[in-house]
Amino acid sequence: MQLNQDTNILIVGLGVIGGGYAKALTAKGYRVYCITKEQKDIDYALAHGIIHEGSTRVDPAVVGKADLVILALYPHIVLEWLQSHQQHLKPGALVTDVTGVKGRLVDEVQAMLRPDVEFISAHPMAGRESSGVEYSDDSVFRGANYIVTPTGRNTPGAIALCRQLGQVLGFARISELSPRKHDEMIAFLSQLTHCIAVVLMNCNTSPHLEAYTGDSFRDLTRIARINDEMWSELFLWNREELLRQIDAFCGTFAEFRTLLAEGDRAGLREMMRYSSFRRALFDKPGADT
Amino acid sequence: MQLNQDTNILIVGLGVIGGGYAKALTAKGYRVYCITKEQKDIDYALAHGIIHEGSTRVDPAVVGKADLVILALYPHIVLEWLQSHQQHLKPGALVTDVTGVKGRLVDEVQAMLRPDVEFISAHPMAGRESSGVEYSDDSVFRGANYIVTPTGRNTPGAIALCRQLGQVLGFARISELSPRKHDEMIAFLSQLTHCIAVVLMNCNTSPHLEAYTGDSFRDLTRIARINDEMWSELFLWNREELLRQIDAFCGTFAEFRTLLAEGDRAGLREMMRYSSFRRALFDKPGADT
Repeated sequence: MQLNQDTNILIVGLGVIGGGYAKALTAKGYRVYCITKEQKDIDYALAHGIIHEGSTRVDPAVVGKADLVILALYPHIVLEWLQSHQQHLKPGALVTDVTGVKGRLVDEVQAMLRPDVEFISAHPMAGRESSGVEYSDDSVFRGANYIVTPTGRNTPGAIALCRQLGQVLGFARISELSPRKHDEMIAFLSQLTHCIAVVLMNCNTSPHLEAYTGDSFRDLTRIARINDEMWSELFLWNREELLRQIDAFCGTFAEFRTLLAEGDRAGLREMMRYSSFRRALFDKPGADT
Repeated sequence: MQLNQDTNILIVGLGVIGGGYAKALTAKGYRVYCITKEQKDIDYALAHGIIHEGSTRVDPAVVGKADLVILALYPHIVLEWLQSHQQHLKPGALVTDVTGVKGRLVDEVQAMLRPDVEFISAHPMAGRESSGVEYSDDSVFRGANYIVTPTGRNTPGAIALCRQLGQVLGFARISELSPRKHDEMIAFLSQLTHCIAVVLMNCNTSPHLEAYTGDSFRDLTRIARINDEMWSELFLWNREELLRQIDAFCGTFAEFRTLLAEGDRAGLREMMRYSSFRRALFDKPGADT
């Protein structure tokens, strides 16, 4: 299967990511149908030309027509939705998702799914602090990473189509990782950073700090404005790996603290030089940060 | 004393901050003389119209003409420079700085300075990851905070002039803090965030992480590219306060870890809601982050 103008695409969940997918796909001439909870989100998306049709009802005829189903839902709702509606899926349909945790989710979905449909999981590494379709913006995909997480149950055709979807959406770099390796990476790169931002905003309650701050603090805490419902679910679904990353971070922090307490300037400078070297690897191609 | 077009301004140290000051002042029609270590920096600044005159030599006649001396130097060099050259200062001259630590520095400078000149300390909360005059950019001052840190030895006139300097440079918000309170604030808002970024880049050495990262990690580690000479000096000059802030941060992190390990979703969500509330206070006026 190849993604083309005849592909019937169904997006379930018109939040900030589902909305961004819809925007990008519709703008490129694909036909996008959408199912979501709130009528106001359908109305908004129709009024802004983000989708072709939409409904708050799970219409078996609509589900049964879709060649590609994109579940832009919280992990537990991905499972619930498939449990309730997988009998309506078109034979041969491909199902993908946008979820930020993979291991347990991919295992459970692939174990329960009908054998004549295929689930290929992917993680678009581009989010926003605000939620809701009205904040969706497909420009955040440009320059961003897209990770496909296939398992032994996936076919080369499904992996290829999922990669093609990442390209059509405008992602700059498309990679493949096993679901376990993905969860390990994401625990460090995304979940730990969100924990740090939340802890930073909880550990000092002095008033009026904003009058004295610089941009580095603002940058570090941008993500402290956090969707607590979603992130608490993602953290708990990846609890063991996230605990390991927290422990590694806090262990290194203890080493840093010892250098500082002992006045070991050479040791501090060595850690700073290593961090400068490592950070350079993360520059976006063509950008200066 | 009022800053005006007749004020003779001397900037010592043409790095990224000294250069930014020179650029802003020259653009507003002030006459800026500069003393710095490297002839190439003088040449660059003259070629780009950033200063009126400059020299690598400390000419007593030039120092003796300056009404306002801005020391854009590392803390220990502020002390050394004044020890070596304060005898040339003009009676009634005002000396200020741009240093990121205050308590001990302000004490030592005010204790050793000639009684007929005055030292009023200030901290421009705007930096860059790159050092050197060629990276200086006075646009980083717009929207940024400027903190004046007077002591009982300062006169109202000097405080007013220092505040006026912040306005002329284009800072959005000008505040006053005691040197001790400044160091406490800055340990949290600036030094701790730099420690976190450095530790983050030291605690996971997996290769190829950059292919899987999102923007939150990039934002948190932008400052991990760090001038190790300067920051190690700033950390050590503010060691006790920074250790306190590190301990508060790590203590709160331990609480967060316990909630996660125990699967206490309500507790995690409470910390996230508090961080979202606190972070909103730090939005720049008129910006969405």
